[in-house]
Amino acid sequence: MRKVFQEELKLVHDDLVEIARLVAVALDKAVDSFQNTDVDLAQEVIAEDARIDFRQTALDERAIDILALQGPVASDLRTIVGSLRMSASLERMGDLARHIAQLTRLRYPESAVPAPLARTFERMAELDKTMIEDVAQLLETHDLTLVAKIQGTNAEIDDLHAGVFRAIADPAWTGSPALAVDAALASRYFERFADHGVSVARKVSYLVTGEWDGDMTSN
Amino acid sequence: MRKVFQEELKLVHDDLVEIARLVAVALDKAVDSFQNTDVDLAQEVIAEDARIDFRQTALDERAIDILALQGPVASDLRTIVGSLRMSASLERMGDLARHIAQLTRLRYPESAVPAPLARTFERMAELDKTMIEDVAQLLETHDLTLVAKIQGTNAEIDDLHAGVFRAIADPAWTGSPALAVDAALASRYFERFADHGVSVARKVSYLVTGEWDGDMTSN
Repeated sequence: MRKVFQEELKLVHDDLVEIARLVAVALDKAVDSFQNTDVDLAQEVIAEDARIDFRQTALDERAIDILALQGPVASDLRTIVGSLRMSASLERMGDLARHIAQLTRLRYPESAVPAPLARTFERMAELDKTMIEDVAQLLETHDLTLVAKIQGTNAEIDDLHAGVFRAIADPAWTGSPALAVDAALASRYFERFADHGVSVARKVSYLVTGEWDGDMTSN
Repeated sequence: MRKVFQEELKLVHDDLVEIARLVAVALDKAVDSFQNTDVDLAQEVIAEDARIDFRQTALDERAIDILALQGPVASDLRTIVGSLRMSASLERMGDLARHIAQLTRLRYPESAVPAPLARTFERMAELDKTMIEDVAQLLETHDLTLVAKIQGTNAEIDDLHAGVFRAIADPAWTGSPALAVDAALASRYFERFADHGVSVARKVSYLVTGEWDGDMTSN
């Protein structure tokens, strides 16, 4: 019984890692479509998001079956419930990659990248890519040194996000209102993506160490 | 044992209803602060959101204890896991009420309501208020006729949201970029609020009937 249980826990673990990898691919393509106004690639991201959603549903079903059939307690129980939370965060990250692709498609054949802020968005995209790679790695290896790195990445993204909002509120902003809206939305998508990444990282840290890093409510 | 279990399930149920009521109060105040540029009320919403987060955490702890101590199966198990999901959606609705209050505070002493779209936002706010009242009622009574009503409310909000985006993208838009951004963000907050309400409604419907209404992935 115990052995079967450990094997099933391992499958949930592997599912989480695989979903994180799918999200990394989705983000990669979404950023690519956004920066190169590639509407075909944007369509691909939008279509493939259903696959991530499907994987999340499958993982949740597996987790619920484990709860029903094995009745885990203590740390095993928290791992299973934590997996449900992490799969929800990863699914949301997939949605946000899709939102970036949808913005690209909406503006096509124009570019959705707000030209005056192109460098900022390049950096935000790069940081989000690093973050999801680190999250996938953390899920796979439980190497907790990645948690602080992920939080540092998030802090930099938050700063860039605040900078975008300052730029578009500035009287010196010369772009159109539509451009300002694109900037606000895209910036918010990149920022929310990173927030969910931090949620996953903190959850892994909690499951490994048994301790929250303080600010539980922000999760 | 069975009786204790039913009592504990009832407590989770009551917690959900109470959190929904707290979210309704938060939204009421957030809308009020937004429409009347009342920064004190906005501060109140922002401060009180921690209470909703705390209630969610407490509910989740209770649900996990039930999983650990009672090992529920079948529909009881789905109810508990469903409660974890619904509490997460309600907590997000509280966050979105807070975001509306934060937008109000950010623009103070200016109004955050984009004047050309004041009527649209009035209607969206009204619809969100109706929705959270219906969600709380549905959680309390399991009266499934409310599910279709909630989905209808959401459809109207989606239309208004699309209208806001058309208005700010229109060359005839005369507002500033900052105003367009406020409109885009506020509209998105109202629309996301309703989306989470629909998630809760569909989850209740599923738990009561055992059937999904088709489009599982959009949940």
